[in-house]
Amino acid sequence: MNTTETTLKMVFDRWYALLKNFDTTLNALTDEQLQHEIAPGKNRGIYLLGHMIAVHDDMLRLLDLGEKMYPELFEPFIKEADKAVSELPSATTLRAYWAKQNEVLKQKFDSVPADEWFQKHTAVTAEDFAKEPHRNKLNIIITRTSHLAYHHGQFVLIN
Amino acid sequence: MNTTETTLKMVFDRWYALLKNFDTTLNALTDEQLQHEIAPGKNRGIYLLGHMIAVHDDMLRLLDLGEKMYPELFEPFIKEADKAVSELPSATTLRAYWAKQNEVLKQKFDSVPADEWFQKHTAVTAEDFAKEPHRNKLNIIITRTSHLAYHHGQFVLIN
Repeated sequence: MNTTETTLKMVFDRWYALLKNFDTTLNALTDEQLQHEIAPGKNRGIYLLGHMIAVHDDMLRLLDLGEKMYPELFEPFIKEADKAVSELPSATTLRAYWAKQNEVLKQKFDSVPADEWFQKHTAVTAEDFAKEPHRNKLNIIITRTSHLAYHHGQFVLIN
Repeated sequence: MNTTETTLKMVFDRWYALLKNFDTTLNALTDEQLQHEIAPGKNRGIYLLGHMIAVHDDMLRLLDLGEKMYPELFEPFIKEADKAVSELPSATTLRAYWAKQNEVLKQKFDSVPADEWFQKHTAVTAEDFAKEPHRNKLNIIITRTSHLAYHHGQFVLIN
């Protein structure tokens, strides 16, 4: 295994392990529990779930892997804070989106050649990338992994 | 910049960014607030702070960079759950440990040659490492980064 392969293995192992952890927590919660706040006055479970899907959906665009699957989630789950939008998709809908998304993202990620992960993502210019080669596609996975861990730490607090 | 250098840049950028985020949250909390629970019935801020220091302390051993600085934190902050140990170090003490630790770890990490991050850490045998080269020193940074993000997501909930 060369350095590139080892690096990809480390980064994707983390990504998939955290997705699995989040999924395990999600599956242990009822739809009713998803309406609970993670702590008094803080975000609800349903908001965090929608937020994760919306943020991961945007990875498709950043990684040049196609259009968003659920563009309608941007406004209620990224642009707006929890409780600012009165009509959110149901827990059943979001659970289905989450499952489908994980399947599609895995399939698309698996199709990317190893070296391409070190090429630039779509939100950096070629000029900036020449100076900052760490602003590559793999860095999108790395930053979204810590974002996922952050919110999973909150998600597990739901009673 | 070659693949190894780019990888180290990405991984350590994340590690230091999350340490800084945690530090910013910590500095905005009073000693009294650190005694609050992150959510009703959950860990207190003081426990999370001690837990982070104890877990990061163990990185020294895993990375073959020396002995633990605060071995006495293992029992109250890793082995035992919050509230199981009645006498914890004070917030002042833990804040000082945290600051000192971040300084020492950075110094030690900076002293490690780039290629050595892809060598095995101390908790894996040479035989296992030959089959699983991703169980290297850099992976310790990667896994502790998501651990840090997970608990920072909780730490920000303290009122």
